[in-house]
Amino acid sequence: MKRRDFIKKTGLAAAAAATAAAGLAGCGKKEEEKPMEAPAVITRKTYEWKMVTTWPPNLPVLQTGAVRFAERVEAATGGQIKIKVFAGGELVPPLGVFDAVSEGTVEVGSGASYYWAGKAPAAQWFAAVPFGFNAQGINAWFYSGGGLELWEEVYAPFNVVPRPQGNTGVQMGGWFRKEMNTIDDFKGLKMRIPGLGGKVVSKAGGTVVLLPGGEIFTSLERGVIDATEWVGPMHDLRMGFYKAAKYYYYPGWHEPGTTLEVMFNKKVYDGLPSELRAILDAVAAETNVWSLSEFEAGNGAALQELITEHNVNLVRFPEELLAKLRELAEETLEEEAAKDAMSTKVHTAFKKFKEQVGIWGSVSENAYYNVIADKYKLKA
Amino acid sequence: MKRRDFIKKTGLAAAAAATAAAGLAGCGKKEEEKPMEAPAVITRKTYEWKMVTTWPPNLPVLQTGAVRFAERVEAATGGQIKIKVFAGGELVPPLGVFDAVSEGTVEVGSGASYYWAGKAPAAQWFAAVPFGFNAQGINAWFYSGGGLELWEEVYAPFNVVPRPQGNTGVQMGGWFRKEMNTIDDFKGLKMRIPGLGGKVVSKAGGTVVLLPGGEIFTSLERGVIDATEWVGPMHDLRMGFYKAAKYYYYPGWHEPGTTLEVMFNKKVYDGLPSELRAILDAVAAETNVWSLSEFEAGNGAALQELITEHNVNLVRFPEELLAKLRELAEETLEEEAAKDAMSTKVHTAFKKFKEQVGIWGSVSENAYYNVIADKYKLKA
Repeated sequence: MKRRDFIKKTGLAAAAAATAAAGLAGCGKKEEEKPMEAPAVITRKTYEWKMVTTWPPNLPVLQTGAVRFAERVEAATGGQIKIKVFAGGELVPPLGVFDAVSEGTVEVGSGASYYWAGKAPAAQWFAAVPFGFNAQGINAWFYSGGGLELWEEVYAPFNVVPRPQGNTGVQMGGWFRKEMNTIDDFKGLKMRIPGLGGKVVSKAGGTVVLLPGGEIFTSLERGVIDATEWVGPMHDLRMGFYKAAKYYYYPGWHEPGTTLEVMFNKKVYDGLPSELRAILDAVAAETNVWSLSEFEAGNGAALQELITEHNVNLVRFPEELLAKLRELAEETLEEEAAKDAMSTKVHTAFKKFKEQVGIWGSVSENAYYNVIADKYKLKA
Repeated sequence: MKRRDFIKKTGLAAAAAATAAAGLAGCGKKEEEKPMEAPAVITRKTYEWKMVTTWPPNLPVLQTGAVRFAERVEAATGGQIKIKVFAGGELVPPLGVFDAVSEGTVEVGSGASYYWAGKAPAAQWFAAVPFGFNAQGINAWFYSGGGLELWEEVYAPFNVVPRPQGNTGVQMGGWFRKEMNTIDDFKGLKMRIPGLGGKVVSKAGGTVVLLPGGEIFTSLERGVIDATEWVGPMHDLRMGFYKAAKYYYYPGWHEPGTTLEVMFNKKVYDGLPSELRAILDAVAAETNVWSLSEFEAGNGAALQELITEHNVNLVRFPEELLAKLRELAEETLEEEAAKDAMSTKVHTAFKKFKEQVGIWGSVSENAYYNVIADKYKLKA
């Protein structure tokens, strides 16, 4: 950088340093170092932030991904932004994250947008939509289809700036104590399943039960609930569900690619120099692709263990049952979308982009997966 | 930041500025600004780099992705790293990129690793392997399965540091002037198809023709070649292939998720402060997920146009033909892997990780795509 540029571009403290250096020379003292010929000197404000999450401590990829985000931000800013991460309940309740970021109690939060549907119904479309996008589809919507701009619009009234920061990939359909042959098998079924998926199960005649993570296993084992979904093999294995339910159904029609989010208080985010905003965005995207990779690798290993060591019975939901669930999901989405103008807008954009990528997915990823499909050779 | 920390952490120029400020006070002059109470002042060396790519100017996502990488690096470093991007042939020949980075003629390059198979045979596994990983699989291998470390090992003797910087997703199988019904239809077929895919076509009895991009359309139209693959709908539409060949085959078994790379001269990369290395890594990952998103969105839109406006005949390769190609691909890979110790090592790791994620892909992405598959409704 030329000196003239340097003086133009740097701030007050640098100018002061320059003045100081000139003063030093004027005193006739020796210049041991030559600050004026040194590389550009600039001001650097530092930031110490708090980040609260909705996840239990150490929950793989979800909580560890939030921690990783903080670490990578600190690394990429050379310590200019330091983020202290608090798991759910440590500083604010797990579902108090959005409010804390919105009010500016903390600078950063991490969760999944469907948790905030009570405040902003349109938020649901940015986390997981039954029979909606998988990870590749929703990323395409976010980064190349206007999805992220819509998400920003939904959060703006709350002074929150969202970024995709992870994706679980296609989840599993859940653990069931009995076989699911037709849609009627949902009648009276007590299932732990939150969000839009839960609304679909209700529509099918099921009873949706909401339980904290720590109570699910016991409830399933004792028959207090008949079924539960959780995440995927990596997390389900840790929860020990295979000891409490015989059938492990797929695919996870209700959460085909759940987006994890990082969100910033808008005033904090907007007040940053542009290079720090660019770093936060880049590290969020980096954590996004990393987390999907962790799920892909970890679920692969855990599924092998579930099959070979625990003899788990992997079952695909019958075609007709899935078709009925899909109809009910479409009804549910139309009802939710009708609730306010923003939801209508988001739902319309979502459907339009889904049509754009749908046929391409059929001749690309879908056709290719069908060719390389592993026919569960570990069971044979 | 506390002052003590600041002094510990910042470099010589900052210390000199502090000394200068002290000196200034010692002269009894007025301090108009108070540098010691100003935010941290640090040194910042600037970098002006050249980046050469293997792509034609303005080629969507491939060349524009390299340019985007450079722009985002400049944004995230606040201009500390400025990268001037040169398309293929502008500074060095398209296939001279690796050498230029290796020799340090330029600091950065962008391409795809299979182009360097002549120098490092093991490089092929990191770009596209017939019947190998799709984008999600290869990213999992890179970020969470040890794949990137192996890639670094392959490039290290050349003083080059690789990072995944993009992915095309599943490509199309190519444009054919005649129907492909059995593996025998490859006998005598003149096809433009590079890399490992080309070796498989040769094994099937085809004649592989290598042509520069600008000559493919005319050659296909005149029957100099019988078939060509290129990328996917977005790029194929621009090339006008639909005017020269009747059948558009899928899926792209030969390039199911081609990785684009950014690479740095090792001395340059290793010589950077750690925060700049972290920024380069984060922006590479950001560009990686962005580029796959661009392909997903752009291919979706282009395929609709090809079908509705140009009446393109989308055809799936017959099952049995794909099975034969897969056998030939496995033979080809084993032969390539046997050529040197590094290739053997990489191939073995690749196969092992593929087994780990294979069955999981079948019950997750594959099963889900089968449920949401769009049955080419634009044709019906």
